[in-house]
Amino acid sequence: MNLLLLKPDQITQQSATVSGRQFDHLLTVQRAQVGDSVRIGVIDGPMGQGIIKALGSEQATLEITLDSPPPPAIPLRLILALPRPKMLRRTLQSITAMGVKEIYLVNSSRVEKSFWQSPFLQPEALEEQMILGLEQARDTQMPNLHLRKRFKPFVEDELGNIAKGSQALVAHPVTEVPCPINCDSAVTLAIGPEGGFIPYEIELLSSIGFQSVHLGPRILRVEVAVPALISRLFPA
Amino acid sequence: MNLLLLKPDQITQQSATVSGRQFDHLLTVQRAQVGDSVRIGVIDGPMGQGIIKALGSEQATLEITLDSPPPPAIPLRLILALPRPKMLRRTLQSITAMGVKEIYLVNSSRVEKSFWQSPFLQPEALEEQMILGLEQARDTQMPNLHLRKRFKPFVEDELGNIAKGSQALVAHPVTEVPCPINCDSAVTLAIGPEGGFIPYEIELLSSIGFQSVHLGPRILRVEVAVPALISRLFPA
Repeated sequence: MNLLLLKPDQITQQSATVSGRQFDHLLTVQRAQVGDSVRIGVIDGPMGQGIIKALGSEQATLEITLDSPPPPAIPLRLILALPRPKMLRRTLQSITAMGVKEIYLVNSSRVEKSFWQSPFLQPEALEEQMILGLEQARDTQMPNLHLRKRFKPFVEDELGNIAKGSQALVAHPVTEVPCPINCDSAVTLAIGPEGGFIPYEIELLSSIGFQSVHLGPRILRVEVAVPALISRLFPA
Repeated sequence: MNLLLLKPDQITQQSATVSGRQFDHLLTVQRAQVGDSVRIGVIDGPMGQGIIKALGSEQATLEITLDSPPPPAIPLRLILALPRPKMLRRTLQSITAMGVKEIYLVNSSRVEKSFWQSPFLQPEALEEQMILGLEQARDTQMPNLHLRKRFKPFVEDELGNIAKGSQALVAHPVTEVPCPINCDSAVTLAIGPEGGFIPYEIELLSSIGFQSVHLGPRILRVEVAVPALISRLFPA
């Protein structure tokens, strides 16, 4: 936790109250003492400093100053085939930590149906992972996360508008075109499941203007490909 | 497993024998049948195709053709503060999958002493993770992995020679210099532990010519920072 990310209801004027996971982290990991200063931020708001005024047995009270903006979002709309549950949480944290603000988790032929039943897809569980990603990266802007359980209608009815005004790319090993480097404009990037999109899905994406691009001769797992692709498109 | 990576002792002339983990994977994950063709490679050797000639209860026999070279290594010498054991395996797999061939796992003030006691540091355990990384990426060249339990003598007596003829960089959030993009020459990159190198360590690295570079305003976990840094330096 490199940033203590507060919800608006934790704040009253210049003071904030911290309990639960964040309080435990302050105490056990950061070993915070009264008088210590910690980096804070408000969800979808500014960042600043908090000075610990009181440490109880279950909560801490901080005097807060909010004086700086969060880091800029990266101009990427990410379309990601739903990863298997154990990967989903880590991947969602990573994507959030890297500054992506528009995330679509979509179905694909090679996504196992059971993945959609995972408890990790509950809204609170998804929000928790994104909050952990923001706290890790020192950001406050929550991503907009969308779930789309049907690939074809999503691509045919929605994706064209989502990608409008951006460079539309799909990561696909079977192409001669390398993924662009250091883009200066918005990108919509589709990333398939382990095993990749099936040819029909690539054709459908191509039919609405998605260009297949590769990441080099090596096949990378989603958890590695995602940071590698984002960092290559937007080195920041 | 995108590549069946064989050890030389599995091969006799044009034929190879597969058992254990690889055999189980062929059967249960790839559901291979006699006559199927699978991508193969020989550790530190060429890649090609294997046709399954016989499937026993515990082993498979393949007729092999080795006709293509592995993908080129990326010209990166990676100096990585030893990650915590649960991260080490995944990170080592990722680094290997991305094509790094010179890896130094080193101590640092913020590396917990207990990490060095991990069973995952046994040579066989480390080799297994690198083989998994190569099989994932479709590569055959095993990385050279070195463990250095003492930071100061490593930097003072060894690192200068390791970095010779390369651009020496240390990932450090507290600098104004961004990490270079798309390098055309060799790089030696040092990456600290969670929490980063301590100032003394940065000074020591700087004293032998390491330039501190940052990855942007966000603080990334090692498992995300490593692919992001490698992909940025060598987009491939």
